[in-house]
Amino acid sequence: MKIRIGIVGYGNLGRGAEYAVMQNKDMELAAVFSRRVTDINPVTPGVKVFNINGAEKFIGDIDVMLLCGSSAAALPEQTPAFAKMFNVVDSFDTHAKIPEHFAKVDAAAKAGGRTAFISAGWDPGLFSVQRVILESVLPVGRSYSFYGKGVSQGHSDAIRQLDGVLDARQYSVPVEASVTAARNGENPELTARQLIRRDCFVVAKDGADKTDIERKIKSMLHYFADYDTTVTFISEEELKKNHAGLPHGGFVVRGGRTGENESSVQVCEFGLRLDSNPEFTASILTACARATYRLNKEGARGCVTVFDVPPAYYLAESAEELRRRLL
Amino acid sequence: MKIRIGIVGYGNLGRGAEYAVMQNKDMELAAVFSRRVTDINPVTPGVKVFNINGAEKFIGDIDVMLLCGSSAAALPEQTPAFAKMFNVVDSFDTHAKIPEHFAKVDAAAKAGGRTAFISAGWDPGLFSVQRVILESVLPVGRSYSFYGKGVSQGHSDAIRQLDGVLDARQYSVPVEASVTAARNGENPELTARQLIRRDCFVVAKDGADKTDIERKIKSMLHYFADYDTTVTFISEEELKKNHAGLPHGGFVVRGGRTGENESSVQVCEFGLRLDSNPEFTASILTACARATYRLNKEGARGCVTVFDVPPAYYLAESAEELRRRLL
Repeated sequence: MKIRIGIVGYGNLGRGAEYAVMQNKDMELAAVFSRRVTDINPVTPGVKVFNINGAEKFIGDIDVMLLCGSSAAALPEQTPAFAKMFNVVDSFDTHAKIPEHFAKVDAAAKAGGRTAFISAGWDPGLFSVQRVILESVLPVGRSYSFYGKGVSQGHSDAIRQLDGVLDARQYSVPVEASVTAARNGENPELTARQLIRRDCFVVAKDGADKTDIERKIKSMLHYFADYDTTVTFISEEELKKNHAGLPHGGFVVRGGRTGENESSVQVCEFGLRLDSNPEFTASILTACARATYRLNKEGARGCVTVFDVPPAYYLAESAEELRRRLL
Repeated sequence: MKIRIGIVGYGNLGRGAEYAVMQNKDMELAAVFSRRVTDINPVTPGVKVFNINGAEKFIGDIDVMLLCGSSAAALPEQTPAFAKMFNVVDSFDTHAKIPEHFAKVDAAAKAGGRTAFISAGWDPGLFSVQRVILESVLPVGRSYSFYGKGVSQGHSDAIRQLDGVLDARQYSVPVEASVTAARNGENPELTARQLIRRDCFVVAKDGADKTDIERKIKSMLHYFADYDTTVTFISEEELKKNHAGLPHGGFVVRGGRTGENESSVQVCEFGLRLDSNPEFTASILTACARATYRLNKEGARGCVTVFDVPPAYYLAESAEELRRRLL
């Protein structure tokens, strides 16, 4: 019997999740849930869209819900609410609020006898696993997380909020000199500005004050003020032609020292180059759904993260087969 | 109270393990065990060397034994024998024999009420974790494991066995064209020859037939016959000067496809650049010793591998602290 998956929210992430479920032979998509039922056409034959408010009627018919809403707007309420009724996976990525989110989801999942896997993306998620493992094997050292080159949707949205802006795309780009130093195991102290620069492509409305827009972007607190930022104004056509995709990437690198006088330099790196950031995150949600399902079957209750899950739980094969084929 | 570590075998790996234990504040080295007690001088103040045959007297005084002998000669017998008496970690790396080794160690550890962590190196070990996780998140795709540039001690030893050879060093070097194709997500079918080439630096004895040595190396089954191999004869001085270290490295790369028509290319890579291969493996053994100790405390009995261990077990901090700091 296949793992019956539900998808909650059908933006880029939810759509990516639908395609990801198709790639996993031990899963099937049971239903899609959204607030805007009539706008949505899933591509999986026979799969219907239901209003998110009626999800509780599907208790017992869905094994794991993939929560594909936004970390800012949807997940803080949605994950605890759904974790009472279903096993769930989310990709909650507001790092500072993870402890609070974990506590709420944990209580809800335990109350419902469910398993909830939160923050299951690439960061938090895959990168977090690397940070833990690499720090454990190289305790004397330093880890860096670099992001890009890729589109930051949060930063793009922040630009779009400004008066006079029609559309925008922001690329995060690792600072090359810092990348080189980190990869050489030099373990420099790096500020936010030294880690990443921010390249903005902006479509201004007719008659807008471009000098004013550029000044406002570069001085925006939290988003741009602490970074070297470039602003390039382009036409709407150029944005559509050259900046339509959502590529991303990045890497975790740790340089450590071992041996006599700690004189050996040991460098480990985990990196991603993604054509589609939401599709990749959706693929992670799907792998984590399998782990969530199995953990719940075994009696696990409450909230887990990538730190709590043995790697074998992400694949369907037996432990023997995994050892034979992949160890 | 600190985790009391014993080291069994004091070659490059055992010595590296001693330095690694020093870097972990929650551990202390209790004793070193060897067959050649009088040759060995541990650098940790107060730590003594005992004959390996008397190890059973230390039951109750050592929490985890790091087994640092060779996979070919020592571990097949040693790991099961020690797993009856102690929690143990080894870096058994003969891939084809892992299932058999696992079964023997599992039975022994269960009989003794111990936890045994086998194949805890970088491959098998860290690379294996990546292969499982990356296959789970990108089920449509292909994984490659590349080794080098670095010294293969097994291949170096094989050359040293030949008549007329005084010493030798063999470097495994990834084939650049294949690396590029794999990193681009082209997912080519690659033979052994297309993955790695083998560069040999050989010191011949006076009067030896170098043409014959080169021919014998290049035709050696399993080791060289299936690879593009170069043989360069050098002096003993040059070997000592330029080839004294044991650097290594390598990477796992997986290219996958996601989304509509599986048209998005997603590439993930985990790589290492190591000044010292044995010191890095020793550092992994040490991190795995912490996990082994904790698993045993919690009641786990028998054999485990990296596939069975949640990442949080590798670090000493609480789950809350890890989520706050590294998720």
